[in-house]
Amino acid sequence: MKNAVCLLSGGLDSAVCAFAAKHDGYEVYALSFSYGQRHDRELKSAAAIATAVGAKDHKILTVPFDQIGGSSLIGTREDVTDHTLEKIGGEIPRTYVPARNTIFLSFGLAYGEVKGADALYIGVNAVDYSGYPDCRPEFIDAFQRLAAVATKQAVDGHPIPIVTPLLRLSKSDIIRLGVRLSVPFEKTWSCYRGGTKACGRCDSCLLRLKGFQDAGIPDPAEYENLPDWYTLGKQRKK
Amino acid sequence: MKNAVCLLSGGLDSAVCAFAAKHDGYEVYALSFSYGQRHDRELKSAAAIATAVGAKDHKILTVPFDQIGGSSLIGTREDVTDHTLEKIGGEIPRTYVPARNTIFLSFGLAYGEVKGADALYIGVNAVDYSGYPDCRPEFIDAFQRLAAVATKQAVDGHPIPIVTPLLRLSKSDIIRLGVRLSVPFEKTWSCYRGGTKACGRCDSCLLRLKGFQDAGIPDPAEYENLPDWYTLGKQRKK
Repeated sequence: MKNAVCLLSGGLDSAVCAFAAKHDGYEVYALSFSYGQRHDRELKSAAAIATAVGAKDHKILTVPFDQIGGSSLIGTREDVTDHTLEKIGGEIPRTYVPARNTIFLSFGLAYGEVKGADALYIGVNAVDYSGYPDCRPEFIDAFQRLAAVATKQAVDGHPIPIVTPLLRLSKSDIIRLGVRLSVPFEKTWSCYRGGTKACGRCDSCLLRLKGFQDAGIPDPAEYENLPDWYTLGKQRKK
Repeated sequence: MKNAVCLLSGGLDSAVCAFAAKHDGYEVYALSFSYGQRHDRELKSAAAIATAVGAKDHKILTVPFDQIGGSSLIGTREDVTDHTLEKIGGEIPRTYVPARNTIFLSFGLAYGEVKGADALYIGVNAVDYSGYPDCRPEFIDAFQRLAAVATKQAVDGHPIPIVTPLLRLSKSDIIRLGVRLSVPFEKTWSCYRGGTKACGRCDSCLLRLKGFQDAGIPDPAEYENLPDWYTLGKQRKK
């Protein structure tokens, strides 16, 4: 059976991505990162998703973003900003973590090389996203070209393909794909604030809720707060 | 004053590289990595070099290569192989660490972005080297193209240049450059084995000794063993 390393944050997109890898016929090696994120609650979700997708292995690497800083997503000195849908994507938000996907994919390369993996999956999305530079197609293309020369595996003639099944899908299309693949959405965690319930106010919550709203599928996650425009299954959640 | 992040292992090449950055007019932000390397002795050397070059800051990041494996340089289960000069570069040796420079440069990108750095220096060398794929010009070129799209700094029109002053120099030329820049070679550490004295038998020791021999300059480092062809200052060291 072919092997794929799948970057798994515990969020909705990476969960659908891991199930897509499984559906594509790969044995899944899930790779998550503990990096001082305020929402490290997502790592519990990552473990649950790894189990649900039948991952062969799930590795959680500790990486020192907290020693570097530069993001409202790390540490507790700065709060995550409340958002409205209109403002998302206008400029790169403070939740941007410098070089995060570059670092995550680099560890994916290393882990993939050791496992002799045939593919490296990452659930980036360039349609309904927060405007991070390292979620764009040109970033993925550049990383693919780097991967083609960076490792022994590549020099030996087997550069690892970077696979991005969600790159050009809308959030609602990602959710519809997740339904078809039987992704247990209730086990995923998207909120940047990381309390016991999702906040329903950060850009990650809003993008997620908008996706469920557009897909006409109620979000099974629990929220502290729901925006006015979200109308699905409110009675059940409040 | 302009700022440069300088990757600093504590070895000879990265020391010359940091002094070159200083000579180029940059304030040096030194960045080292603790990654389970058997020769973590080199980190003491990195600290000494950071002091010697007058670095504004020296950060040592802990990165989890030990959780990934795949190299004789990490952990103690496998010894580093003794080498002869003739065999070096023939094939990628077991001391190769999967995706190491990709990961190190990625952290350099992150740190550089947070510091608003104007350049990222790395002392890779593609002439007298161990044959690692991530020391070659094509790797550096690909990483440069990645850096041009990966960060907020790049999107804002200021992609960080990757500077490689040693890339096409021979080891003896690197040593001569180091002499001109007053690099304290006695404070550097190159040996992969990491005892109290350098082993004089691993490929890193042999490449270093060959460089000093070719430059006609005695290596001030202490060795357990010196190869027959090394003739400089033997009496002092034995």
